[in-house]
Amino acid sequence: MNYHMMAYILGNILRVEGLFLFFPGLIALFYGERKALFAFGLTIFIAMVVGSILSKAEPKNRRIYGREGFIIVALAWIIMSFFGAMPFYFSGAIQGAVNCFFETVSGFTTTGASILTEIEGLPMSILFWRSFTHWIGGMGILVFMLAIMPTVDERSMHLMRAEAPGPVVSKLVPTVKSTAKLLYKMYVILTVLEIVLLFFGGMPLFDSIVNTFSTAGTGGFAIKNASIAAYENSYYEYVITIFMFLFSVNFNLYYLLFIKDVKNIFKNEELRYYFFIILGAIGMITINILSLYPTFESAFRHAAFQVLAIISTTGFATANFDVWPELSKTVLVILMIIGACGGSTGGGIKVSRLIILLKMAGREIRRIVHPRSVNIIKLDGHKVDEEVVHGVAGFIIVYLFLILGSFLLISINNYDFTTSLSSVLTCLGNVGPGLAKVGPIENYSFYSDFSKLVLCFDMLLGRLEIFPIIMIFSPSVWKRSYM
Amino acid sequence: MNYHMMAYILGNILRVEGLFLFFPGLIALFYGERKALFAFGLTIFIAMVVGSILSKAEPKNRRIYGREGFIIVALAWIIMSFFGAMPFYFSGAIQGAVNCFFETVSGFTTTGASILTEIEGLPMSILFWRSFTHWIGGMGILVFMLAIMPTVDERSMHLMRAEAPGPVVSKLVPTVKSTAKLLYKMYVILTVLEIVLLFFGGMPLFDSIVNTFSTAGTGGFAIKNASIAAYENSYYEYVITIFMFLFSVNFNLYYLLFIKDVKNIFKNEELRYYFFIILGAIGMITINILSLYPTFESAFRHAAFQVLAIISTTGFATANFDVWPELSKTVLVILMIIGACGGSTGGGIKVSRLIILLKMAGREIRRIVHPRSVNIIKLDGHKVDEEVVHGVAGFIIVYLFLILGSFLLISINNYDFTTSLSSVLTCLGNVGPGLAKVGPIENYSFYSDFSKLVLCFDMLLGRLEIFPIIMIFSPSVWKRSYM
Repeated sequence: MNYHMMAYILGNILRVEGLFLFFPGLIALFYGERKALFAFGLTIFIAMVVGSILSKAEPKNRRIYGREGFIIVALAWIIMSFFGAMPFYFSGAIQGAVNCFFETVSGFTTTGASILTEIEGLPMSILFWRSFTHWIGGMGILVFMLAIMPTVDERSMHLMRAEAPGPVVSKLVPTVKSTAKLLYKMYVILTVLEIVLLFFGGMPLFDSIVNTFSTAGTGGFAIKNASIAAYENSYYEYVITIFMFLFSVNFNLYYLLFIKDVKNIFKNEELRYYFFIILGAIGMITINILSLYPTFESAFRHAAFQVLAIISTTGFATANFDVWPELSKTVLVILMIIGACGGSTGGGIKVSRLIILLKMAGREIRRIVHPRSVNIIKLDGHKVDEEVVHGVAGFIIVYLFLILGSFLLISINNYDFTTSLSSVLTCLGNVGPGLAKVGPIENYSFYSDFSKLVLCFDMLLGRLEIFPIIMIFSPSVWKRSYM
Repeated sequence: MNYHMMAYILGNILRVEGLFLFFPGLIALFYGERKALFAFGLTIFIAMVVGSILSKAEPKNRRIYGREGFIIVALAWIIMSFFGAMPFYFSGAIQGAVNCFFETVSGFTTTGASILTEIEGLPMSILFWRSFTHWIGGMGILVFMLAIMPTVDERSMHLMRAEAPGPVVSKLVPTVKSTAKLLYKMYVILTVLEIVLLFFGGMPLFDSIVNTFSTAGTGGFAIKNASIAAYENSYYEYVITIFMFLFSVNFNLYYLLFIKDVKNIFKNEELRYYFFIILGAIGMITINILSLYPTFESAFRHAAFQVLAIISTTGFATANFDVWPELSKTVLVILMIIGACGGSTGGGIKVSRLIILLKMAGREIRRIVHPRSVNIIKLDGHKVDEEVVHGVAGFIIVYLFLILGSFLLISINNYDFTTSLSSVLTCLGNVGPGLAKVGPIENYSFYSDFSKLVLCFDMLLGRLEIFPIIMIFSPSVWKRSYM
């Protein structure tokens, strides 16, 4: 383990986080929120001091192995959640250290599960920071660091691979640094576009910005108790629905669009499946809830919004889907597990993994019908490496064990089956709302600290796609001999 | 497709079923149950006539391919459920054709889910037949046929493999016929032993026999509305607990015991895991329910009984575990999915598959830590063929899709999340009771015919381990060219 390099990167992460914290700090200054201003100031100070100490000496040996990349990314996310929670704690906006940590992990992992029962009374700067953590966590703070750090070499690819979602991560352009820059450029353009569309549609500027942050990161923290439903504005709902879609497709597609390679966009199987799953789900739910709404349009709008909110793993709400008929709820629970496309800001197991799993299921059936047939799995017309296929199978098996294990641990808290299971599914999928006691108009405040920490763990596992977090607990990774 | 051979085997199955029906027929005669006697007589007549027509001409070409074995087994189970339902229908004991079919499928697949709200008023012969279907389905009617048919050649191994549960099926002794005979011999010995222990403990003879049938097949149909709880006798409860264990371990172990190869019994990893899962579950539940029962012994007894009832997939009840604390219910739901050992009469995904999945998960983590390491999976000290490993992964993926698909279809019926999901898990795992509306003191009568048929399908998929049933729907299997 290259501890020197590890400290160096973690220190830089903290310094970057300190920089990000200036934004809510300025908001606090602007609105004259003293307690919050103090809290942000103190956090920035601590983050900068600790960050500077850690990253003081540039390491001579800059080599990072794959496993070190995993460990660094995992620790980075835990440390940045820890420091990110400080403003909530110092300002007294959120009571209890575990609650502060939960809210921050939920923010950075773009889950959007909240322990707050009353959101609207919070200082503006605190609301801004909550949503801003979504924006930072969506594309990833390490990717950001890679984009701005002056000395990035190609070995840093491991960091990007460990943080970026999806079964396969590749560079768009020849270097890691320019790929990271390009990703953030596209991210910023889409973000600005949504802010403009919301603002010119009549939404207050502050609301436009923070709601866009929550959409962009596919997070879901709202600044109203009733989430997006509070605006009672169907224009906003359609805009946000569309942007939840745009932020949950593979960002590589925007690059293809940018270089005018439209043919390859249409060839993208993940996008096609994603599109048809969404259409199917909207269709089923629209029909299922038709009698609950006055017009077809409003049933369709709510169905489309909730389908996108769940499958993109944003978790915004325009309707309390917990009171919808069971079929609609089951569809939403299945979408929770599926999640968004790889290479997006969304969570879940990812549509590309679902496709590979479906093809594996088909192959298994064919193998039994025709034992001697050779069956390769293709994606976008190309053969998928057997190692990737086995990786996906391994991923889903570990995912399953995590679901059952977390479900067991949460059950100790003795809340009902639906609440416990949907809490685990929604946190592991980085969605946010679940069913019953954690439904879209509810929150996670009632859970014990132990349950909250289990769910924090699930959110981190979900966002970093399991292995980086698990690796922290693997003694062999920490051995000196791997230096 | 060798249609001639298929008809021949299916005809013989019907004739065997006709023979089995003589037993409840005799009970009807003995107790003077006229309607039931007529129903059994008529069913025997129809089964014998249809069976004789189908198996009239011995086929010259007796070759069966693997896929044909699968199809034959799947059709055999559907046909035998269809004919097995006739006595319920003709006697008027169960109202509605779908209900009769559900009860019979539930019987043969050893699930034990019932649509009956009132059991105790039924004729004795009908109660006998219900439990007897468990006993027949437990070891398998095809295995029975192979044991008694005069002309069985080694190609029939495909039939046995398709009907016997677990990832690997091997012959105990050199020929299929003698393996089948040996399995039934052990089955009969254990059955007689349980009857004797119950009877000499004071249980009426009829009750001893039918309760033993339900235990032996790991089915769970009881003849009292309150299941085994009705007897209020802890001796019976302990005896049945022990026999639920004995019938849910791999029968190969009894053969090893018979040939005095004790060393290999202790080397059996599946048995060890099974044992420790059971101990762990009993421990957790005993502590969790301690405050609900007057003494430690009664908490332990109920915990042990329910753990064995669920993991063995029998589904008997001595307590309404639906009112137990959530942790206990979650443990039981997880046991529902795991199920019994391969090569037993139990259902679920089987402990041996769980072990392989756990080792795959471990391997996946190791592969990421040390990308170049070679990782083989061992079971009982021997390397598991990669093909078997991939088969298990494929199995679990298809199993998952079936859970989600069935859950979606059942949700149309608009019962709550817990009811719908636990119905699917318990039927697919051939357990019987679920949670909430399908809890241990409830039944399946409220479901629509459509939902009941979906659950019938799940029970058959679970009992035959998915692929035979799926293959019926594969057009390529039916093509002439595969003759």
